[in-house]
Amino acid sequence: MRSIDLNCDMGESFGAWRMGADTAVMPWITSANVACGFHAGDPMTMLATVRAAADAGVAIGAHIGLPDLAGFGRRVMAVSPAELYAMSVAQLGALTAVARTANLRVGHLKPHGALYHMAEQDPALARAIVDAIRDVDSRVRLVGLAGGALVRAGDRGGLAIAHEAFADRRYLADGRLVPRGQPDAVIEDIDAAVRQAVALAVDGVVTSVDGGTVRVHADTVCVHGDRPDAAAFAQALHDGLHAAGLMLRRCGAEA
Amino acid sequence: MRSIDLNCDMGESFGAWRMGADTAVMPWITSANVACGFHAGDPMTMLATVRAAADAGVAIGAHIGLPDLAGFGRRVMAVSPAELYAMSVAQLGALTAVARTANLRVGHLKPHGALYHMAEQDPALARAIVDAIRDVDSRVRLVGLAGGALVRAGDRGGLAIAHEAFADRRYLADGRLVPRGQPDAVIEDIDAAVRQAVALAVDGVVTSVDGGTVRVHADTVCVHGDRPDAAAFAQALHDGLHAAGLMLRRCGAEA
Amino acid sequence: MRSIDLNCDMGESFGAWRMGADTAVMPWITSANVACGFHAGDPMTMLATVRAAADAGVAIGAHIGLPDLAGFGRRVMAVSPAELYAMSVAQLGALTAVARTANLRVGHLKPHGALYHMAEQDPALARAIVDAIRDVDSRVRLVGLAGGALVRAGDRGGLAIAHEAFADRRYLADGRLVPRGQPDAVIEDIDAAVRQAVALAVDGVVTSVDGGTVRVHADTVCVHGDRPDAAAFAQALHDGLHAAGLMLRRCGAEA
Amino acid sequence: MRSIDLNCDMGESFGAWRMGADTAVMPWITSANVACGFHAGDPMTMLATVRAAADAGVAIGAHIGLPDLAGFGRRVMAVSPAELYAMSVAQLGALTAVARTANLRVGHLKPHGALYHMAEQDPALARAIVDAIRDVDSRVRLVGLAGGALVRAGDRGGLAIAHEAFADRRYLADGRLVPRGQPDAVIEDIDAAVRQAVALAVDGVVTSVDGGTVRVHADTVCVHGDRPDAAAFAQALHDGLHAAGLMLRRCGAEA
Repeated sequence: MRSIDLNCDMGESFGAWRMGADTAVMPWITSANVACGFHAGDPMTMLATVRAAADAGVAIGAHIGLPDLAGFGRRVMAVSPAELYAMSVAQLGALTAVARTANLRVGHLKPHGALYHMAEQDPALARAIVDAIRDVDSRVRLVGLAGGALVRAGDRGGLAIAHEAFADRRYLADGRLVPRGQPDAVIEDIDAAVRQAVALAVDGVVTSVDGGTVRVHADTVCVHGDRPDAAAFAQALHDGLHAAGLMLRRCGAEA
Repeated sequence: MRSIDLNCDMGESFGAWRMGADTAVMPWITSANVACGFHAGDPMTMLATVRAAADAGVAIGAHIGLPDLAGFGRRVMAVSPAELYAMSVAQLGALTAVARTANLRVGHLKPHGALYHMAEQDPALARAIVDAIRDVDSRVRLVGLAGGALVRAGDRGGLAIAHEAFADRRYLADGRLVPRGQPDAVIEDIDAAVRQAVALAVDGVVTSVDGGTVRVHADTVCVHGDRPDAAAFAQALHDGLHAAGLMLRRCGAEA
Repeated sequence: MRSIDLNCDMGESFGAWRMGADTAVMPWITSANVACGFHAGDPMTMLATVRAAADAGVAIGAHIGLPDLAGFGRRVMAVSPAELYAMSVAQLGALTAVARTANLRVGHLKPHGALYHMAEQDPALARAIVDAIRDVDSRVRLVGLAGGALVRAGDRGGLAIAHEAFADRRYLADGRLVPRGQPDAVIEDIDAAVRQAVALAVDGVVTSVDGGTVRVHADTVCVHGDRPDAAAFAQALHDGLHAAGLMLRRCGAEA
Repeated sequence: MRSIDLNCDMGESFGAWRMGADTAVMPWITSANVACGFHAGDPMTMLATVRAAADAGVAIGAHIGLPDLAGFGRRVMAVSPAELYAMSVAQLGALTAVARTANLRVGHLKPHGALYHMAEQDPALARAIVDAIRDVDSRVRLVGLAGGALVRAGDRGGLAIAHEAFADRRYLADGRLVPRGQPDAVIEDIDAAVRQAVALAVDGVVTSVDGGTVRVHADTVCVHGDRPDAAAFAQALHDGLHAAGLMLRRCGAEA
């Protein structure tokens, strides 16, 4: 029986500010990417998120970001590989300790926002993330764009990796995502997004914007928690994948 | 042979700003309290500090602080026990991961600045720190004011503790420190400070400001790294304690 | 014809995080207290808030706060009068410049959260705020607790002042507020809150928690924008005060 | 009699961290670029810097930067023109208010670090800075790279401008600076730097790295305050320019 992971960004509140629909989304996913205080999150939020994940049986990962709260980690910043290495270590470590208080361990790491894309573009940054994981806890799985440079760097570095695909983002013919600025970048319709997720999970293919079929290997599908309909979207993905005969479980879980 | 630990606050630089004389002080101490990014320090500084400690054979600890960079953690803030617990976990975790990249482990934890005193005043805050250590890594030794409320809370909570005394601070008749604002709070003269350190380490006594003798049990003596003469001060303490027949080594080190 | 000001805290979003119901509340108030980036707000949010106030014909004021984003300025911090003076100047200045881009001027200043209460307790802090206003723009009106120490300090310092009362907070027999932690601190029922606002605005009295009548002079009534029903609450206050024969306008507006 | 301005970055301390040799440099310069709290500086530091400038008769300007304390504003960040506009307004406003408490006004504005170069590369960012000045205080002079895109944008926008040249940076044949990473980017020798400053101020020329003569119009010469020998450097520039017959005074000062 084939399996797939459903991941969602979680713990993106900060202080008195709320973000996301964590409680409503949590029942439908298998992995939570927890913000670590650099682009979002704070120690209290991290703790609450990890405890909620523990209660729901959801695996957790470190969602590492750029040190830019005001920009939510979405603004490209010229950080050096040495800086990124140190920031990755500190963020992974903070979440590891928080997780330990709930008897969980950090199972994966995924860069957030601008860093997700920077790691695809700059091999030295990808390598800094890989080194950080290897030096802190080499069992942590590296999650990145399916078929992309980051997961390839992780693989070369001896890490477990997970190829991430998107249910609600459209793809170009070469397997890259349609950039967010463009009008057809996001699939608003939930049914269409579920169909794309099923195609990804079952057949390893996606229909590109120009109508062709693109091969995309997906170990995990991202649930965008910042959609207004995030909870319904998560449930529909969960139910649709299940109906298609897939087992939903975190990457690397024993069969 | 009796032993004593010499500790110093380290890694208090931030970004482009330098603070302290870490390199000059490191050879003379046995334990470094490393700032964890809340009141001072940043991931790059933490990493450099841990590597320098590893090179020098100096033990490291988490110097946890209030989230107040602009105030350097010296301004009392009304944080709740729940907030302090979460902040302590995150700071200890960040340093633990940084230490792991240098094959070190965090051996102790000491609150910084205002938090050092808040933990003496408020049992719920002391308890939050104790709980954080116990839930993250119960082998971490808690360092606090000799004979004070924090180390007693740590002892009750089953933690290893270290009583901290000060070579260059004057004591009141009841064993508390003369508050920093007062004119005779600090011992400027290095020789006098060394004599006080030797009396603390060898006989467990200190002469109070009113001339009496006060019993103070000291496991570790603090070297103030923010003195203008910090390096000379550290070396004089090291040499003076050694000349008095003491072995300098980190608390808990096997004989 | 008697007049009253309705003020509400505004511009408390930060970066990607939304807070408050600014757009829905704006039509019903006469003064907006705009966060200045220390406890909440950021330059983009300040600008959007000031522009919205300009469009709605609402007066603006500087809502100055402690430098504690993670705590939303609600945690007491031991800032010195000199620090508070400098922070007040900088916050007032930032909003003054933002206002100028919309052809508005800052008409009032009100401390936020913990600072509101700290300025009541510590005369040196109240004085620091008064001095900051006087040195930057002495036409700025100081808003504080009705009959409290801050407005008295402002009055002594030659500033225009506004006594602030609360529609939805209960009062003690001595005119102080029932502290927030207590069960009967907040008036949840909108009609009851409107009745209290009318009694304050028309007769200058409020019924205290023990049933007595307390004299409270109110120049401005605070609309709590963080109530879940903030917009309905603001409209009900506006309509109720209007129906009671009051003209709603900012403090100091020419008749 | 020809005149030239000597400017230096000032007020770059933050909280407990010191930077620069402000006190030693102040007597020799005519304009201080004061950090406004985004990349460096804080309200207390801004106030102390402005008061020191007032005492020394030195003109002040807003040294605006990216919101990146940890990176000291030296890391390129993908801020939008709208964000930069709002950040420029807020920083200029904060310093304007601080200046008013010392009976000074902000006479110029200069972008710091990465922003200095970003404004040369991206016309929309240059325009955002120009618009911010015009909307807050159109008398504020815009300082930028001599002959560069920023000052040209300021000129087109109707602002007073100042072309900035560097005594201790080497120039390429096309008038641009040798990038900082390169070995010959900085002129370490003070005498050589003074000669370059005199050539700039008297003849409007500089010798490029390949030995040619490049025309560079300089209204103001930058004193790098982060050189270890900053004070001696500033004095040597002051004395050398004076000896060459130049009057040292801020740009725009009446003759």
